[in-house]
Amino acid sequence: MNTVSNYLSALREAMKAQGLDALVIPSADPHLSEYLPEHWQARRELSGFTGSVGTFVVTADEAGVWVDSRYWEQAAKQLAGSGIELQKSGQVPPYNEWLATNLPENAAVGIPSDMVSLTGKRTLAQSLAAKNIRIEHPDDLLDQVWTSRPAIPAETVFIHDPAYVSETAAEKLARVRAVMAEKGADYHLVSSLDDIAWLTNLRGSDVPFNPVFVSFLLIGKDNAVLFTEQCRLNAEAAAALQTAGITVEPYAQVADKLAQIGGALLIEPNKTAVSTLVRLPESVRLIEGTNPSTFFKSVKSEADIARIREAMEHDGAALCGFFAEFEDIIDNGGSLTEIDVDTMLHRHRSVRPGFISLSFDTIAGFNANGALPHYSATPESHSTISGNGLLLIDSGAQYKGGTTDITRVVPVGTPTAEQKRDNTLVLKAHIALAEAVFPENIPSPLIDAICRKPLWQAQCDYGHGTGHGVGYFLNVHEGPQRIAFAAPATPETAMKKGMVTSIEPGLYRPGKWGIRIENLAANQAVADPQETEFGSFLCFETLTLCPIDTRLMDTALMTDGEIDWVNRYHAEVRRRLEPLTEGAAKAWLIKRTEPLAR
Amino acid sequence: MNTVSNYLSALREAMKAQGLDALVIPSADPHLSEYLPEHWQARRELSGFTGSVGTFVVTADEAGVWVDSRYWEQAAKQLAGSGIELQKSGQVPPYNEWLATNLPENAAVGIPSDMVSLTGKRTLAQSLAAKNIRIEHPDDLLDQVWTSRPAIPAETVFIHDPAYVSETAAEKLARVRAVMAEKGADYHLVSSLDDIAWLTNLRGSDVPFNPVFVSFLLIGKDNAVLFTEQCRLNAEAAAALQTAGITVEPYAQVADKLAQIGGALLIEPNKTAVSTLVRLPESVRLIEGTNPSTFFKSVKSEADIARIREAMEHDGAALCGFFAEFEDIIDNGGSLTEIDVDTMLHRHRSVRPGFISLSFDTIAGFNANGALPHYSATPESHSTISGNGLLLIDSGAQYKGGTTDITRVVPVGTPTAEQKRDNTLVLKAHIALAEAVFPENIPSPLIDAICRKPLWQAQCDYGHGTGHGVGYFLNVHEGPQRIAFAAPATPETAMKKGMVTSIEPGLYRPGKWGIRIENLAANQAVADPQETEFGSFLCFETLTLCPIDTRLMDTALMTDGEIDWVNRYHAEVRRRLEPLTEGAAKAWLIKRTEPLAR
Repeated sequence: MNTVSNYLSALREAMKAQGLDALVIPSADPHLSEYLPEHWQARRELSGFTGSVGTFVVTADEAGVWVDSRYWEQAAKQLAGSGIELQKSGQVPPYNEWLATNLPENAAVGIPSDMVSLTGKRTLAQSLAAKNIRIEHPDDLLDQVWTSRPAIPAETVFIHDPAYVSETAAEKLARVRAVMAEKGADYHLVSSLDDIAWLTNLRGSDVPFNPVFVSFLLIGKDNAVLFTEQCRLNAEAAAALQTAGITVEPYAQVADKLAQIGGALLIEPNKTAVSTLVRLPESVRLIEGTNPSTFFKSVKSEADIARIREAMEHDGAALCGFFAEFEDIIDNGGSLTEIDVDTMLHRHRSVRPGFISLSFDTIAGFNANGALPHYSATPESHSTISGNGLLLIDSGAQYKGGTTDITRVVPVGTPTAEQKRDNTLVLKAHIALAEAVFPENIPSPLIDAICRKPLWQAQCDYGHGTGHGVGYFLNVHEGPQRIAFAAPATPETAMKKGMVTSIEPGLYRPGKWGIRIENLAANQAVADPQETEFGSFLCFETLTLCPIDTRLMDTALMTDGEIDWVNRYHAEVRRRLEPLTEGAAKAWLIKRTEPLAR
Repeated sequence: MNTVSNYLSALREAMKAQGLDALVIPSADPHLSEYLPEHWQARRELSGFTGSVGTFVVTADEAGVWVDSRYWEQAAKQLAGSGIELQKSGQVPPYNEWLATNLPENAAVGIPSDMVSLTGKRTLAQSLAAKNIRIEHPDDLLDQVWTSRPAIPAETVFIHDPAYVSETAAEKLARVRAVMAEKGADYHLVSSLDDIAWLTNLRGSDVPFNPVFVSFLLIGKDNAVLFTEQCRLNAEAAAALQTAGITVEPYAQVADKLAQIGGALLIEPNKTAVSTLVRLPESVRLIEGTNPSTFFKSVKSEADIARIREAMEHDGAALCGFFAEFEDIIDNGGSLTEIDVDTMLHRHRSVRPGFISLSFDTIAGFNANGALPHYSATPESHSTISGNGLLLIDSGAQYKGGTTDITRVVPVGTPTAEQKRDNTLVLKAHIALAEAVFPENIPSPLIDAICRKPLWQAQCDYGHGTGHGVGYFLNVHEGPQRIAFAAPATPETAMKKGMVTSIEPGLYRPGKWGIRIENLAANQAVADPQETEFGSFLCFETLTLCPIDTRLMDTALMTDGEIDWVNRYHAEVRRRLEPLTEGAAKAWLIKRTEPLAR
C-alpha cells in the first residue's frame, strides 16, 4: 500500500520530469459531478484527506489541501505529519491566488484536463496571467503515480421504467433542439450526467446515490451521439436509444468527435471539462449558456408530481416503521448508535415498492453531532443515542417515481425549554415559507428572507441555503432554482410551476444540538388564481409526508395560523399514510399526528 | 415663441450642417441629477413632452420620445400632431437599439457631452459598434436651436447651519482620501451634487426640492477644488471652504483642470458626464467605483438621527394641523381640490421651525388619481375631493435637521369593505417590514420579500420599490441602499446602522383608488444584542410621526401582533406630537390615535 508520503515524492518526481512547478488536483470529474467516481478521487487518495471536497496543490517544496470549514477538524487530523498543510478556505487566499503569489514568473502549473471546467481554467488563468504563469495538462501524470487507480465505472445502464416517465427521449431532444435553433447552435455537448440521464430516460449506478452513468451526449441538428461503452447498455436501453435516434460511441472518443464538427457549439462552460474541448477546431464558435435540459428537467409534469406523491407516501410509511421501532427500543432502555439508525432506516425503506437506493448518505447526528450540518457517522467515529438529547436525521431515497429528502428532529428523553424554543423557531421559519404565495418567475433567492424572518427576529440564522431543487429519480441536488439569499438572484433561478424544491431552515448550537426541519415542496398555481394586473402567483404543495415531532413544539410561541398549519399537515399525513402502515408503525403515526391544542 | 415643429426643423438643419444622422437629447445634466435645472431641460422644451424623464431622438426623417409607462397618456396628448412619435419604453426596443436598426452603416449619432454619463456612452457605443456608427458631441447645437435657453443656475450657496452638522468638511474629506489611498487614486472627481453638498456641508437652491448647487469637486491628496462661481458663495460659505482647505475655480474650468492632472483618477462612471473627461490626458488611469461619499453620506450619526427625530415631530405636528383643517372643511360640506391640499399642507409645514422647502412635489391623488404612483395634480388637470373615496397624499419637506417623506391615505365619506381590505393588506405589509429584524450588512433588496409577503398572499403586488434611502437635509432619494427585489443585490447595497430608508408598500386599483403607507425608518442595532455565532442584527426605528387612519383598518384581517404594532405606534405619535399641537390639531391627533380594539 502506498503512503501519502510515497505519493508526495512520486508526484514531485513526475512533476519534475514534466517541467511542472506546481500541480493542482481538484475534486472533480469530466462531468463536474457532486459525487465522484473512484477513478477521479485522486485528491482523496493522494492527499489522505477523505472529505467530499478539497483542492490539493503540490509544489517542489510545499503541499496543501484547501478545505472548507466543515472539514477543518477532520482534515487537521488526517493531514497531521504528512508534509501537507491544511489550508482553511475563507481564512487563507484561494489556491489560485496562493499559486500566483508563491510561484516565480514564467512558471508552469499542471492540472489534469479532465478535472477542470472551462470556467475553472479561465479563473485560474486570470490569476496567473500577471506573472505569465502557464497552465499545462499532464494527463498521464496521475496514472503514473496512482498505480492502483480504479477504472472508470461501467455499471449497467438501464431504462427508467416507462410507466414512470412523462416524455420520450425524442421529445426531450426536440425541445433542446428548439433552443439550439434559437441560439444558432449546430451542436450541443451535454457533459452533466443528470442532464444526460434525464434526456435519454436512462439511468445507471456508477456512483452511489445519483442514478447516473458516466457519458457525454453530443446533440446535432438531426443526430445525437451518446459517448459510453455499448456493452454497458442492457437490451432495453440499447433499443430505447435506437428509437430516440441516438447512436453510441465509446466514452473516450468524445474529444475526437468534437474535432470533426463545424459551426457553433452550445456548452455550459462550468459544466464542461477542458479535456472534451482540447481538439475542437478553432473555427467552431462557442455559444455559452446553461444546458437547456437543466431548465426542462427542473419542471416536473403533473404526472411526475402524482408519482412523486406516491413515492412520498411510501417513504413516509417507511419512516413511520422506523420511528416506531426506534422509539420502542429507546423507551425500553435499549441502546442505539447513529450507525444503527442508518441501517434501520435503510431496511424500512428498502422493502417499499419502487425503492432503488438511498439518495444520499444518511445524516444521523445526536446532540453535538446534529450541530454539524454535514455530519456523517462512521464506524470509527459516532455517538450512542442515550440519555437526554435531540437526534437529527436527514435522509432520503431514490424511487422509480421520485427522489426523497427529509430531515426530522426527535427528542430522546426529556427536551429542555431551550431546545423546544429553538425547534419552534425553526418550525415557524419552515411554515412561513411553506405557506407563502409568491410571484411566478421570481428569482428563487429573493424569497429566502420570508423563511429566515422568524429566526432573524430571535437573532438566529443558519449558514446553509434554505432550499435546493430535487430531481425525479435523479440527483437530490439539482438546479437551476436555489432558495438561498447568498446565491445570485439571476432570471435563470426563476421559480416555475412544477419545480420541486426543499424547504429546510435550521438552527445549530455548536457543541450542543442541531435542528433542521426539511420537507420537499412542489411549485403549484394558487388555488383560486385571480386575473389581475399583478400577474400570476405560485404556492408550495408540501410533498413530504411524515410527522414533525410535536413534543418539541412550544405552542406559546406559535400563532393560531401556525398551529393550524401543523394540524392541517398532520391530518394530511395521517390520511395518506394510514392505509400504508400497520401495527406499531400505524400506532406511532396516530400518536404523532394528534392535533396540537391552542 | 418657438413651436415644437419650428424646433424640429431647426434641429434637423443644425444636424445636417454638422453631418449628424441622428441626435439624442436625454433627460440629463452634467451631474446625472434626478431634478434637472432649466438649462438642461432641452428634451422637455424641444419635444413638447413635459414628463420628468424621457429620451428625444431625431433623425432626418423620424423623431420620437422614449417614455416610461407612467407618462404614456400624457405624452400621447402632448406629442399629437407634432411629427414626434411616442415610443413606449418596455413595449418597443430601447432608443440605442432603435438607432442601431434604423441608421445606415458608418452613420454619425450626436449627443451633447454634458448630458451623457461615461456608462451611458459606453452602452450606446456597444449598440452601435456592429454597424460602425460613431458618436459625436455637438456641444454647441442645443444653444443654436434653443435660442431662449435659460442660463446655468447660480443661486446663493450657503452653509448647512453648524448646529445641525456632525462632521466638518475637512473630516469628511479625510475619510474620502483614506479610500482614495486604499484604491491607489491620486485624484477623485465628484460630480453628483448631493455628494458635493454633503462633503462641503454647503447647500443651495439651484433646483426645486434638492438643496444642492451646480458644481464639481476635485479632491487631490492634499488639495481640493470646488468648481463653482466664487460670487455665488455667501461669506460664511466662502470662509467654510477656506477652513476646509478647498479652493474655488469657475464651474466651466473643470475639464481644463482635469487636463492637467496625472496619476490615477477615481470616478463613478454612471455619475460622471463625458464632458468633464474630454481633455483628460490618456496617461491618467481611471479607477471606477461608487463615490466613497455615497456610502458615508448614507450612514447618519446618532446626533443626526436625534435631529431627524425632532424634524419628524415638527413635520408630524404640521400634518396634524393640515388634517384637522382638511377634515373640518370636508365634514362641513366644503369642497377642496387636490391643488388646495398641496397649498394647505405647504402652509402648515412652512411655519414649523427649521423648515426650508418641500422635498418633492406633493402627490395628492383622489380615487383614480391615487392609483397613479407618480401622479401630480396641475392647475389644468386635477380632481375635486367630494363624495366618497380615498385620498392619497405623498409629501415631504426639507428641514435644517432632516428630510421628510410620508404617505397617508384617508377616507372621504364612507369607505367600502374592499377599500378597507386593500388598506389593511398594505398596512400588514408595512408592519411586516417595520418590525423585521435582519442581519447587519444584508444587501437591501433581499429583505423586500418580507414586506411583500402579506400582499402576495392575496395575489396583490405593487410595481415600485419598497424603500429608498433618504438624505439629511439633502435629496429625498439617495443610495446606496434600496429595498427593491428588482434591484441588484450587490454588497454595495448592504444595510448599515444609521441608514435612513423609506418603507412604502402600496396597492393600486387602476381607475379606482391607490393606497400607499410610507414611513421613514432608521437602521438601529437590536435592543438586546446577543453575542452569538449568528452575527449582528439590525431593526428599524420608525422615524415618521403621523396617525395612520384607523377608519381604513379591518381588524378582522389583522393579527394581535399587528394590532399591537398600530397601538404602540399611535401611542408614540400621540406622546411626541401632543406637546407641539394645540386646538383643532391636538383634538384631531387625539381622535386619530385612539387605540384599535381587538
